Amino acid sequence: MKYVTYLAEHDARAGLLIGAHVVDLERGLEWAQGQGRCLEQRHFPASLLRFLELGLDGRELGAYLEEETGWQGADFAIPLEKATLLAPLPTPRSFRDFYAFEEHVKTARANRGAEMVPEWYDFPVFYFSNHNAIVGPEADVERPSYTQRLDFELEIAIVIGKQGRDIAPEQAHEHIAGLMVLNDWSARDVQMQEVKVGLGPAKGKDFATSMGPYLLTLDELEAVRDGNRWALEMTARVNGRVLSRGNFQQIYFSVGELIARASDGVTLYPGEVLGTGTVGTGCILELTTDVHRWLEPGDLVELEVERLGVLRNRIV
Amino acid sequence: MKYVTYLAEHDARAGLLIGAHVVDLERGLEWAQGQGRCLEQRHFPASLLRFLELGLDGRELGAYLEEETGWQGADFAIPLEKATLLAPLPTPRSFRDFYAFEEHVKTARANRGAEMVPEWYDFPVFYFSNHNAIVGPEADVERPSYTQRLDFELEIAIVIGKQGRDIAPEQAHEHIAGLMVLNDWSARDVQMQEVKVGLGPAKGKDFATSMGPYLLTLDELEAVRDGNRWALEMTARVNGRVLSRGNFQQIYFSVGELIARASDGVTLYPGEVLGTGTVGTGCILELTTDVHRWLEPGDLVELEVERLGVLRNRIV
Repeated sequence: MKYVTYLAEHDARAGLLIGAHVVDLERGLEWAQGQGRCLEQRHFPASLLRFLELGLDGRELGAYLEEETGWQGADFAIPLEKATLLAPLPTPRSFRDFYAFEEHVKTARANRGAEMVPEWYDFPVFYFSNHNAIVGPEADVERPSYTQRLDFELEIAIVIGKQGRDIAPEQAHEHIAGLMVLNDWSARDVQMQEVKVGLGPAKGKDFATSMGPYLLTLDELEAVRDGNRWALEMTARVNGRVLSRGNFQQIYFSVGELIARASDGVTLYPGEVLGTGTVGTGCILELTTDVHRWLEPGDLVELEVERLGVLRNRIV
Repeated sequence: MKYVTYLAEHDARAGLLIGAHVVDLERGLEWAQGQGRCLEQRHFPASLLRFLELGLDGRELGAYLEEETGWQGADFAIPLEKATLLAPLPTPRSFRDFYAFEEHVKTARANRGAEMVPEWYDFPVFYFSNHNAIVGPEADVERPSYTQRLDFELEIAIVIGKQGRDIAPEQAHEHIAGLMVLNDWSARDVQMQEVKVGLGPAKGKDFATSMGPYLLTLDELEAVRDGNRWALEMTARVNGRVLSRGNFQQIYFSVGELIARASDGVTLYPGEVLGTGTVGTGCILELTTDVHRWLEPGDLVELEVERLGVLRNRIV
């Protein structure tokens, strides 16, 4: 199932992406109930975050809407080309970003003459970033005035769907609502200065993070699951030119291990987002400016992950 | 004015601290309106976060309740000794923590043989921490199973009351709802390991942050304001023994400069919390274990800031 959030007049509303239509989640359920279906679900809220908090499941509705398409033409079903998609969670409950791909860490460090840190292999590290500055698909991203070294980062977002604490890696998948493409925009000049003080990156990454275009539930990924990893090609293009190619399977720590780390002694809530960190070759910092200059206004950045879609943003 | 959040049956509700009573904000307003007062304010919400988001101001009501005490004995006015105070914002919109006291940074680094980083003087650095793990006054704090080096940090929290972006230091006070005492609990062993990887502290500080007991509005601090700083004694006691003594005036970057940094290219929203960082001598890491061992279950930690009250928590 593909969950989206779309703009209806001035409101952000949750929807299901059914073929080439965005079907409003609340009103789609009312329609199905009018047909005598999905009667156990009393009501779906207009907010996807609230939907996750209530522990609801839209798969029965989704399956019905796929099979029974009498809703086409109704005002709660918007053709995708006419819909304005926002980030599936316009304001997630939090945003942690990990650093879980070995090649990215090794290469980015080697480029500045630094050795690999042995502690990196001991546990997955993360930092918290700004969950109040989330940008949706197809939206413009403003280059902050204070940076000359704007970069993208090709990542995958894991959305928590069920509250938990001290979650074991092998139980972690039960706590996942789904996955999204994620772009952790970075001001490398600011980041390089601030990390010297030892508190990690914050100002270098707080101005924007893109997520979307949709939240895909894990059941849709069974065919590409290989144990506790998923084989999903990851690609980044700038102005149509492919710069990055990797695969989600290359992640060193499994998604279960990331969730175990985040939830160790800490409660995770529905709507919290965990980023995987950048896949190998997934940013200019790692590729170096010999491959591509830093991003400039006008550049179109497209991050594509197999089955998760294309997250496209233009720099302004 | 002192805003609080208190537990009423099973609900967190906003209140005003009037003398030795917690007066429910929503119901206190209804009472005052019944007396023909505060009629311009139509309604106050039950949540202090929502109250801030709506840009409301409780000072007129507070002044009236102080003068006209006919509400005493009503069920919406709880004697303080019978009230259970929660953190004023049980889940703030975000939590950034700065590192703005020079003595703390210098001494903590010197203790591990490190020089001062020159970049520290160039701009105030911060990191984001876990705003979903906030603990209130008088509540127990669980020592995480994975740490043997639990520490407190004596800080002040700045609560944003008005949305803004690119806020100039001299305009920053208009964006502040008020101040609170803040304890940024830290697992030093975990922190020391994770910071080697370069993403800053996260797991070492994500399990708990205490805030409270009340949110004090800035107008109550005019008498101790000295330019863009406030003279407020800061003290930490463990099991009654004074370990730390500092003054808010010693902060190197002003609160205006912290807000300017956080809001540079980024929108700040009501209910976001900014910590100042630890005042000089304000933690065991800085004092060293020659002065006090790491915290253990049973220890009572009291952080006191002049006019902002005492934030008291027991380790379990």
